[in-house]
Amino acid sequence: MTQLTFRDARPDDIATILRLCHAGDARGPDTPPLDPQTLDDPRYLAALDTIVADPNQRLIVAQRAGEIIGTLQISFIPGLVNFGLKRGMLENVHIRSDQRGTGHGAAMVQWAIERCREAGCTYIQLTSNKIRKDAHRFYARLGFSNSHEGFKLAL
Amino acid sequence: MTQLTFRDARPDDIATILRLCHAGDARGPDTPPLDPQTLDDPRYLAALDTIVADPNQRLIVAQRAGEIIGTLQISFIPGLVNFGLKRGMLENVHIRSDQRGTGHGAAMVQWAIERCREAGCTYIQLTSNKIRKDAHRFYARLGFSNSHEGFKLAL
Repeated sequence: MTQLTFRDARPDDIATILRLCHAGDARGPDTPPLDPQTLDDPRYLAALDTIVADPNQRLIVAQRAGEIIGTLQISFIPGLVNFGLKRGMLENVHIRSDQRGTGHGAAMVQWAIERCREAGCTYIQLTSNKIRKDAHRFYARLGFSNSHEGFKLAL
Repeated sequence: MTQLTFRDARPDDIATILRLCHAGDARGPDTPPLDPQTLDDPRYLAALDTIVADPNQRLIVAQRAGEIIGTLQISFIPGLVNFGLKRGMLENVHIRSDQRGTGHGAAMVQWAIERCREAGCTYIQLTSNKIRKDAHRFYARLGFSNSHEGFKLAL
């Protein structure tokens, strides 16, 4: 299996990341169909700048043989309890559909787990839409427990 | 019903916030029994400083007649999709046990929803331990949908 490499996203990755986030069964309520005419909308560059400027956010791309095959975002959330418990949160974990079942998705999440451990997080959390049973099995295999209900409210 | 007032937490609120977070059925895996001897541990002040210094974090206390009766933390998470979708996340939502069933808990969460709306969040999310059926009914009444599984992994 070709090794994955990971790096923070750059402006020229925006279109690729958006296509990954909007593809196939990864689509959730926050990712309606992507209009390809909007990929160079300046708001995307502004949004990436905001993420990059925040030391508690990392928008990551995973590359295999020079090609981006996956993306995820890590958010570090500082807290008060337990002498300042910090948690890591994963959002928008997406892998290209032709790369599923290869172990690359697991390698991506394991990489993110290591970054959270390095950052001193006590635990790592994520939510996954209840219809995505395949994703739930995937996270369970990686040691995650679905101990919580994930509530959302559109504003 | 006496009106609640809300403000950001200050150093002299730390012990009260910790007692609220560790009380009764609010206790989760991240809040083991609180050792009262540790309430003035300097790590708590450092943790509060970290939260206050981060413009994407707000640790809030709710007061009624001058007394703190509840607390919650709002985290604003910047994102890329949908032209820079921002979400609000609630953590450590706790109300003093003698104040339950008074509507004050709902008022606290509604206040937090308004802050997320003001901040331009597209939605607000939270996770709640599966054993806390009362909390699930509470969030459902406020319009939240438990559309997601909430996964956690201790590091």
